[in-house]
Amino acid sequence: MAVVISLDAMGGDNAPAAVLDGAVASLVRHPDVSFLLWGDQARLAPMLDARPTLKGKAEICHAEAVVGMDDKPSQALRRGRNTSMWLAIDAVKEGRAQACLSGGNTGALMAMALVQLRTLAGIKRPALASLWPTVKGDSVVLDLGANVECDAEDLVDFALMGAAFARIEMGLSRPTVGLLNIGAEELKGNEAVKTAATILKESGLPFEFTGFIEGDDISQGKVDVVVTDGFTGNVALKTAEGTAKLIASYLRGAFGSSILTKIGYVFASGALKILAAKLDPRAHNGGVFLGLNGLVVKSHGGTDGMGFAAALDMTIDLAKAQIGQKIAHDLTHYARKLAPPAAPEAPAALADPA
Amino acid sequence: MAVVISLDAMGGDNAPAAVLDGAVASLVRHPDVSFLLWGDQARLAPMLDARPTLKGKAEICHAEAVVGMDDKPSQALRRGRNTSMWLAIDAVKEGRAQACLSGGNTGALMAMALVQLRTLAGIKRPALASLWPTVKGDSVVLDLGANVECDAEDLVDFALMGAAFARIEMGLSRPTVGLLNIGAEELKGNEAVKTAATILKESGLPFEFTGFIEGDDISQGKVDVVVTDGFTGNVALKTAEGTAKLIASYLRGAFGSSILTKIGYVFASGALKILAAKLDPRAHNGGVFLGLNGLVVKSHGGTDGMGFAAALDMTIDLAKAQIGQKIAHDLTHYARKLAPPAAPEAPAALADPA
Repeated sequence: MAVVISLDAMGGDNAPAAVLDGAVASLVRHPDVSFLLWGDQARLAPMLDARPTLKGKAEICHAEAVVGMDDKPSQALRRGRNTSMWLAIDAVKEGRAQACLSGGNTGALMAMALVQLRTLAGIKRPALASLWPTVKGDSVVLDLGANVECDAEDLVDFALMGAAFARIEMGLSRPTVGLLNIGAEELKGNEAVKTAATILKESGLPFEFTGFIEGDDISQGKVDVVVTDGFTGNVALKTAEGTAKLIASYLRGAFGSSILTKIGYVFASGALKILAAKLDPRAHNGGVFLGLNGLVVKSHGGTDGMGFAAALDMTIDLAKAQIGQKIAHDLTHYARKLAPPAAPEAPAALADPA
Repeated sequence: MAVVISLDAMGGDNAPAAVLDGAVASLVRHPDVSFLLWGDQARLAPMLDARPTLKGKAEICHAEAVVGMDDKPSQALRRGRNTSMWLAIDAVKEGRAQACLSGGNTGALMAMALVQLRTLAGIKRPALASLWPTVKGDSVVLDLGANVECDAEDLVDFALMGAAFARIEMGLSRPTVGLLNIGAEELKGNEAVKTAATILKESGLPFEFTGFIEGDDISQGKVDVVVTDGFTGNVALKTAEGTAKLIASYLRGAFGSSILTKIGYVFASGALKILAAKLDPRAHNGGVFLGLNGLVVKSHGGTDGMGFAAALDMTIDLAKAQIGQKIAHDLTHYARKLAPPAAPEAPAALADPA
C-alpha cells in the first residue's frame, strides 16, 4: 500500500534539518512512501535540493507560522491555523496523507489533533502510547500523559487500543495486557483500576488480560501492553529515564575513580558501546496518539535525524497496517462485552490537555 | 539520648537471623542503643547466645505468633494481637521503646501501626517515606504506597513531614520540596497537585517549596523532598527498581557478547564493583511511616543482615532526633498558614491500607 506521511517540518529543536534527515534515512527502508513537508517554503526548498533522494518523494507545502514550544495549547488552537503543525494534521483529515508526524509542542499537537480529527466513535479520550524497552524486547505502555484523570472505561479503551498497537508493531496475534497497580492482589488500588480489571476479565477479547502488574514488571516485560492513567504513566516513563541517567552517571564515576578503573574502561569500551546502543532513547522515539479518526505521532522534540527516522518508521508501520481501522473494528466487535449499555456518546469536550 | 528499639524479630524472609545480624552490625555504630526482640523465645534464645555483643543489649520478649507475608491487613488485625509485629508496635505505644522496626507484611504493619498509634493531631493519613539515590546524594520521597488517593491537604501534610525527615536524616536546615507532576507548568496536573501547590506557595514554611517537578527530576536530585500520592509514588519507585534491573541485565549481556568484551569485563571489574555498590538496594533500605504518634519503620522483607542494619541505623537516627515531636511542632506552628480554618479533625477512620 502506497502511503503518504504528512510531516511537520518545523517541529522540534533541530527542525527542519532533523526532520528531513530522518525522512532520508527512513526512505531507504520504505522506498514506497512519500511525504508532505509543511513549513517555510523559502527555507525548506534549498534543504530539499541538498537531499536528492528525498526530493523526488517529497512535496513542500508552505506554512507561514510555527507553534512555539512554550505556547499553551489554547493559544495554539486560537491563533495557529496557519502553522505547520495545524496544516500537517489537516492533511490527514482531508485524506491527503495517512498519518502525521511532528516533533513540536506536545500539548498543542494533542489539542489540534483532537479538534481536527475527533475521537473514534465509542472512545472518550485519545491516549498517548509508546514502546518501552524490556529484558524481553519491547512492550507498549499507555497512557503516557494525554489524560490526567482516567476512569475505568478509559482504561478499558486503552487496553483495546494498546493491544491493536502491539499486534501491529510487535507482530503478536494475542498480546498480553496488564493493568498497572501498586500490588498484584485484587484488593489493592483505586476504584478505576479495580473496576477496569473486573470488566477486562470478560472473555472473548482480542488479547489476554493477565491482571495487575507493578512498576518493576514493566521493564521485565511481564506483559506486552501496560495500561495506566496518563498521570501515572507519564511519571513512570520519566522516572525510568531519570534512573537510566543516574546509572550512566554512576558508571562514568566508577570508571573514572582510579588509574586501574580507567584502564578497565579502555578494555570495556566495546561492551559499553553495546550498552549505550541499548539505552539510546532515539531507538524508542515516537509517541502515538491512539483513538482518533486519523493517525498522529509525536517525535521527541530534542532528537536528531536518527531518532526522527525511528519515529517515522513506526508511523509508517502503523499507517500501512491501518491501525485506526483495526481499533474501530475491535471497538465495534467488543464494545458490548466491555461495558453496560449506555446512551450514545456526546462529542468529546475540548479542553487544554494537561 | 539512650534509645530502645523494638524489633519484630520474626518479620521478613530471612528472619530471625537477618534481624539479629542487623542489630549486631548497627550496635557497632550505635553502642548506646538497646533492643527488645519480639518473637519465639525458644528459637531466639540460642541465636542470641551465639551473638555475645548483642546479648547484653537485647531482651527477648516472647510472642506466640507471626503475621504471614500474605495475610490481609484486616485478618492480621483481627487475629494478630499475639504476633511479634503487634507486640513490637505495642512497646512503642506503651513507651517501652522509641521506635519499632519490622521486615514483615507491609499492609499489616501499616494497619497495626495506625490502630495502635493513631495519627498525630492534624494529620489525616500517615505516609510511607524513604530515601532515594540521586546524582547529588539522597532525596526523601513520599508517599510510597500508604495512601492510594490523596487530596491537596494530604500532599501538604506530606511536604511538612518529608521536610522534617530531610532535616534530620540529611542534616539540612531548610530542605527544598517539589510536588511530582507531569509538567513543570502551573496549568498541568490534577486538582490535588494544583491546589497543594497554591497552599505550599505560602511563605513562612520550614522548607523551600520550588514548585512542580517531573519524574526524571527525582534521580537528578532536583529537590531534597519529593511529594506525591501513594499510587504514583509506589509506581515510580518500583519502575525505577525495574529500570535498574533492566540496565544490569543489558550490562551483563554486553560484557558477555564476545571474547573481547569478556576480556574487557576482567579489566572493568573494579569499576563494576563500585557500580554494584552504588546500586545496592540494601544501602537504601527502610521505609518510614510518618505522621503517627510513634515511629514505625519497614525494612524490605527480602533483605539480609547488612540491609537490615541500614534500616536500623536510619530508625535510630530518627528516634534520637525525635522526629515525631518535630513534625508535631511544625504542624502546630504552620497549620494555620497552610489551610483555611476548618472544623476540628475527626479521628482517622480505619480501613485496609491498599
